[in-house]
Amino acid sequence: MKLNIIKIGGNVIDNPRSCKQFLEDFAALEGSKILIHGGGKVATKIAVKLDVETKMVDGRRITDLPMLEVVTMVYGGLVNKQIVAQLQALGCNALGLTGADGGVILAKKRAVKDIDYGYVGDVEKVNAPLIDNFLKNELTPIFAPLTFDKEGNMLNTNADTQASSVAVAMAEQYEVNLIYCFEKKGVLSNPDDDDSVIPQLTPSIYADYKASGVINAGMIPKLDNAFAALQRGVAKVTICHADELKQAVAEGTRGTQIIL
Amino acid sequence: MKLNIIKIGGNVIDNPRSCKQFLEDFAALEGSKILIHGGGKVATKIAVKLDVETKMVDGRRITDLPMLEVVTMVYGGLVNKQIVAQLQALGCNALGLTGADGGVILAKKRAVKDIDYGYVGDVEKVNAPLIDNFLKNELTPIFAPLTFDKEGNMLNTNADTQASSVAVAMAEQYEVNLIYCFEKKGVLSNPDDDDSVIPQLTPSIYADYKASGVINAGMIPKLDNAFAALQRGVAKVTICHADELKQAVAEGTRGTQIIL
Repeated sequence: MKLNIIKIGGNVIDNPRSCKQFLEDFAALEGSKILIHGGGKVATKIAVKLDVETKMVDGRRITDLPMLEVVTMVYGGLVNKQIVAQLQALGCNALGLTGADGGVILAKKRAVKDIDYGYVGDVEKVNAPLIDNFLKNELTPIFAPLTFDKEGNMLNTNADTQASSVAVAMAEQYEVNLIYCFEKKGVLSNPDDDDSVIPQLTPSIYADYKASGVINAGMIPKLDNAFAALQRGVAKVTICHADELKQAVAEGTRGTQIIL
Repeated sequence: MKLNIIKIGGNVIDNPRSCKQFLEDFAALEGSKILIHGGGKVATKIAVKLDVETKMVDGRRITDLPMLEVVTMVYGGLVNKQIVAQLQALGCNALGLTGADGGVILAKKRAVKDIDYGYVGDVEKVNAPLIDNFLKNELTPIFAPLTFDKEGNMLNTNADTQASSVAVAMAEQYEVNLIYCFEKKGVLSNPDDDDSVIPQLTPSIYADYKASGVINAGMIPKLDNAFAALQRGVAKVTICHADELKQAVAEGTRGTQIIL
């Protein structure tokens, strides 16, 4: 059985026209599918208005309790439900979820070492049978980048990692096609040239690009997640432009293909 | 098969201690159960901070687009997910839902007659088989007071009405016990005396109290919903204090019993 798991980045969500086009293409995909969405800049804008300070330590965002409330509202409420309502209008029976709902993605609050990231969760366990049950009932799970810790807390979670974790869990039962969609055409060999897409990326090519500094810091966690997913049973991983979702699924030739 | 459907009012949610106690009691209820929560004052507070004006016409709140975004965030995100995370910690496998999720509660945007209420939904159809499927999978649906219209919009919906609609839909298959929990001990015969609980309310007693002005305006929609639910197959309707949920379910003798 095939399963398409699509992650859509925050920059696409922030752009109403791109987001609408993406959701139309997603709704039109046949067969079982799952969407994991990022947060976008709405949370930051709303945090500013609510006088919730965005705290950064060593360039990393910290999720303190007020910021956790903002992301829970914005990712789990506003962004998730707007996507669900739009997909419902497009005939896709979307079911909005955070990891807490049905206990579907359990996480652990990140341990404090050098930095206290606050209410940030690292995924521990994905309840694949429950997701499978939703899929068998023709529901399309739409995940916000939030998990929980069984101690009463919601946790802010990286959407790329969440997508990879869900893909790995579902790979035991499905032939999983994991597609990271964002605002670029793929992984670029020249960050200044949007057309310099690397068509295929193996671990050794990746190591070379990293060593030469061509692949930028923002792309590294996404690629690490992509390779990890393949190593743990996911059939195929693609990184492509949100506009090319349809072709990436149908032809499998768009963007950057991640290969072991 | 028995099913307890509990509606919890916004004033209880606004009080952390009352809310915690209520959720402990709710989590401890045996058998199939559903929670429908109100909004509380958090939405109004956040609207003020976000410079979203609360518009009233003839004493009724209007949900314009900015206010819809606030209630979608606050009811569907913050309040719903905080309740879900707390219930998960209490061993209750809560599944947070709006009407849009799985298309479970379809509504119609209220037609403009004298007043344009904006993005307010009147429930049209509850997908009882889907809720039944969730219950059979030992999930406990937790509904935010939000629905959708299949045209891409979320809609703000009265939680009392939503509870009544869900109860009626489930009554075809279950023996439904609908309990409205709030911050009073029941329907009062003297609004100044919190102990003046009317133990049983029939349509004729209700008519008398309404005529004499004893039952206040805020209680009338709740009672109209309660009688409508009984008329449409719900087995039992109670209005009681949130602190008395346990006894209301176990003994059925707390608060005000609504009787045809």
